[in-house]
Amino acid sequence: MTSVESLKESITQVGDKVRALKISNADKAEVDAEVAVLLGLKKQLAALTGESTDGKKKKGNAFTLKTPKGTKDYNDKEMAIREHIFSTIINVFKRHGGVTIDTPVFELKEILTGKYGEDSKLIYDLEDQGGEKCALRYDLTVPFARFLAMNGTTYQNIKRYQIAKVYRRDQPAMTKGRMREFYQCDFDIAGTYEPMVPDSEVIRIVVEILSALDVGKFTIKVNHRKILDGLFEVCGVPADKIRTISSAVDKLDKMPWADVRKEMTQDKGLDGAVADKIGEYVKLKGGRDLLEKLEQDDVLMANASAKAGLNDMKLFLRYLEIFKVLEYVSFDLSLARGLDYYTGVIYEAVVEENLLPEITAEMKKKAKEAGDDDSQTRIGSVSAGGRYDNLVGMFAGGSKKSNIPCVGLSIGVERVFSIIMRRSQLESIKSNECEVYVIAVGDGLLEERMQIATELWESGIKAEYMYKAKPKLQAQFSVCDRDRIPWAVIIGKDELEQGIVKIKDMSAKQQENAGGVTISRSEMIQELKKRLGRA
Amino acid sequence: MTSVESLKESITQVGDKVRALKISNADKAEVDAEVAVLLGLKKQLAALTGESTDGKKKKGNAFTLKTPKGTKDYNDKEMAIREHIFSTIINVFKRHGGVTIDTPVFELKEILTGKYGEDSKLIYDLEDQGGEKCALRYDLTVPFARFLAMNGTTYQNIKRYQIAKVYRRDQPAMTKGRMREFYQCDFDIAGTYEPMVPDSEVIRIVVEILSALDVGKFTIKVNHRKILDGLFEVCGVPADKIRTISSAVDKLDKMPWADVRKEMTQDKGLDGAVADKIGEYVKLKGGRDLLEKLEQDDVLMANASAKAGLNDMKLFLRYLEIFKVLEYVSFDLSLARGLDYYTGVIYEAVVEENLLPEITAEMKKKAKEAGDDDSQTRIGSVSAGGRYDNLVGMFAGGSKKSNIPCVGLSIGVERVFSIIMRRSQLESIKSNECEVYVIAVGDGLLEERMQIATELWESGIKAEYMYKAKPKLQAQFSVCDRDRIPWAVIIGKDELEQGIVKIKDMSAKQQENAGGVTISRSEMIQELKKRLGRA
Repeated sequence: MTSVESLKESITQVGDKVRALKISNADKAEVDAEVAVLLGLKKQLAALTGESTDGKKKKGNAFTLKTPKGTKDYNDKEMAIREHIFSTIINVFKRHGGVTIDTPVFELKEILTGKYGEDSKLIYDLEDQGGEKCALRYDLTVPFARFLAMNGTTYQNIKRYQIAKVYRRDQPAMTKGRMREFYQCDFDIAGTYEPMVPDSEVIRIVVEILSALDVGKFTIKVNHRKILDGLFEVCGVPADKIRTISSAVDKLDKMPWADVRKEMTQDKGLDGAVADKIGEYVKLKGGRDLLEKLEQDDVLMANASAKAGLNDMKLFLRYLEIFKVLEYVSFDLSLARGLDYYTGVIYEAVVEENLLPEITAEMKKKAKEAGDDDSQTRIGSVSAGGRYDNLVGMFAGGSKKSNIPCVGLSIGVERVFSIIMRRSQLESIKSNECEVYVIAVGDGLLEERMQIATELWESGIKAEYMYKAKPKLQAQFSVCDRDRIPWAVIIGKDELEQGIVKIKDMSAKQQENAGGVTISRSEMIQELKKRLGRA
Repeated sequence: MTSVESLKESITQVGDKVRALKISNADKAEVDAEVAVLLGLKKQLAALTGESTDGKKKKGNAFTLKTPKGTKDYNDKEMAIREHIFSTIINVFKRHGGVTIDTPVFELKEILTGKYGEDSKLIYDLEDQGGEKCALRYDLTVPFARFLAMNGTTYQNIKRYQIAKVYRRDQPAMTKGRMREFYQCDFDIAGTYEPMVPDSEVIRIVVEILSALDVGKFTIKVNHRKILDGLFEVCGVPADKIRTISSAVDKLDKMPWADVRKEMTQDKGLDGAVADKIGEYVKLKGGRDLLEKLEQDDVLMANASAKAGLNDMKLFLRYLEIFKVLEYVSFDLSLARGLDYYTGVIYEAVVEENLLPEITAEMKKKAKEAGDDDSQTRIGSVSAGGRYDNLVGMFAGGSKKSNIPCVGLSIGVERVFSIIMRRSQLESIKSNECEVYVIAVGDGLLEERMQIATELWESGIKAEYMYKAKPKLQAQFSVCDRDRIPWAVIIGKDELEQGIVKIKDMSAKQQENAGGVTISRSEMIQELKKRLGRA
């Protein structure tokens, strides 16, 4: 076995090199690199020979055959679903003039530092192998803000979308679509514009997407950071507690008010009477009626922040009506959103859980195998976003001149994927797009099938044939069934000599036209194109 | 400033927590996590206030605004080119029955260990933050083999493609398209099949792709590992030196024979006479003529490996002729390919450098800014691949039963991107797909423009309008020019009252139909669909 011998030789050589480096007191990084190579070569040898590196025979598999915790492979059928979701969403983004950009999967560590508050501990760092300190991106918003800050002269305004993977060292919960590696799907409108106009179009885009994806009945909760801040001030929350009290309010979709109140008073030291006043406000939700009610609240309207927020909200609801999406929206004072950087309108789209298909035992088993420790089944939010007017400025050292205000949305594509997978029969998903299968009757006719396939490919027809010299007829039909290939070209020795082939509709039941329609070979392409609707 | 106050408060709180943890001798990882949060908060505060964390005022930018070395952003116009490349390639993959899968961007470190020989030192490791040791994928082939080994019962055969980013801590050379983060684009046919049939189809696929991408004149060099191994044996290379001598031969496209011979004899201790015999063989290239010449070489044909390889090659050339791609192929005994895992046919497609557009001064400047230290301008190989029959088996502990033979191709999409960018005028690339711009004459009519845009979106028409209350007519026309939007709907107050709008062909020169065609508003959608070819 040449490659075993060659490996053993390499191991000896690299081993010698490591010893020489150590003797000459070489740089540690250099020695480590060679040691890593050595260990790799030994492992490779072990895999080839079935021996472990210390020479003992090992039983079975030398490798842990799994993906890292919180990540998964997507097979061809799952990818067909995912690509359907992405193309549906991109179609809507493009309908609104969106263009896409791409940023690296890792950023300089300092770009990410200080953007995610306490969640910074979930950031994946790359090992310091010399050079720059880098970390995997945690979301697409911060890299986008960095891009704008770097290219602000060219991109004073842009409607950009980006669909890409982000990384969080969180506890995975696969049935909910929460992974350590997952896709984010963002659309942001950057630029200085008429108040609330892009903010409303973002909601219109969410409605178009969720409707096109058919995720079931959904509601988009909306609120405004200025209203919330004003409301907290009016209730008597000290200025330095506003952000932390806002975080507590954000938990109202997962916890009853009594628990949130306890967090505010006991953990965060808020006065009980102040908490009770907040409690009265944050239970309010509605539409224009709520807006009118708040506009009559003289105490609230006397607060500059609340007043500005309510004026925005009035315009917002008016534009949502023009965009024909007001019916999907609930003005909800309990919506606060966790992220610090929002400065204006905030929103979150939630699906009605009870309308979703249940999680199967099979899905639970898979989730458990993948290290999922979360027994909850809630899908919850499928889209969220809001206005963040100061993030780009942060990268420009706080300079007002270089700032670019933004408003954006994020579609929870992994959750949408979970919803669609729950109601799909995986077997029935078609991943292969082959249009014509080239089948031989009798002698195999491998080269003749290759010739026909070449003709089909040259005409842009998606075609396959069996990579066997003498395949059985039934085996060839079975492939058509399995991959649901709609058409077959059937050739036989005699027919080819006469210059004819048969075309068979494989989706039709076998009774009618069992043998297919006979046509001259020179008409084959034209006939197939006609049947495929491309003539 | 609420958020500054809130940040200061958080800094105090987290600082207290860190001290408390240290006093209580808490776990180091826990303390480190909190310290990281604290540093992040301080940096955030510094960015907001322009003060450095030790309280001193800092001038200008607090962040290094760049992407990590060897990585880059792709703006909307570059992305338009990239998506054109990807969709062209995917179209060919699907024409041959390809399906796609996805694997995580990082793998367990031990999956990658021992697969890349000395290049293992280029692997990016993730920092050990507790849990599994992981590393960014180095290519898509090893993760695919891991996927097959995990799912072999379901995927005994599959034609899979995958286009995804891979990572190598190499010296970047951007003008050549060599980056630390770059796309690989692979198509592999896995399964036990008739000899050389999938191997030949892979070449057909490369020709279809390179022709569709219009990269210019190209040649596909082909060779066979068994011929090479046999040839080395016949020349007298000791068994344990075959792989390393093969690596030396692989450098013949970059070095003259004299240098390669020196490496063989001086560095690798090969006998000079043996090297000279190799030298006679590896200068040979041709087509069927070369095959016939070698078949008459009795010494070579007496070697079992060489004979098996030449038999394969005969079949291979025959099938390439049937697939109508023989003219693109050069049987070249100097092609060896670096990777260890190839076991059969190997190939590499190269473009003719002298036909490519030159690199501009602007491109060189950009490359230098990005840390490119390579002054070479060679693009070289745009596709490579071969047969690797034992890689999947390595993951199954060398078990023959669980092995799945594979043959595949990789398209060098970054190099193709470089070629296309060299001949493109970036300004002239259209990234925005907007079809209709809604324009107001006179009073601004913001809400009316929003209404019309909503109607267009509801009909699936890609539409935009200016997010300004009272935009100037010329400003609106300028957007159409800049984004090359083909149609405009023009509204005015009087016209709307009369129930009419104007439709204007923005691609036509301003003279003809300067004001557009007037139609009733109820016919607007139908008329636009007709003009967009969708009626």
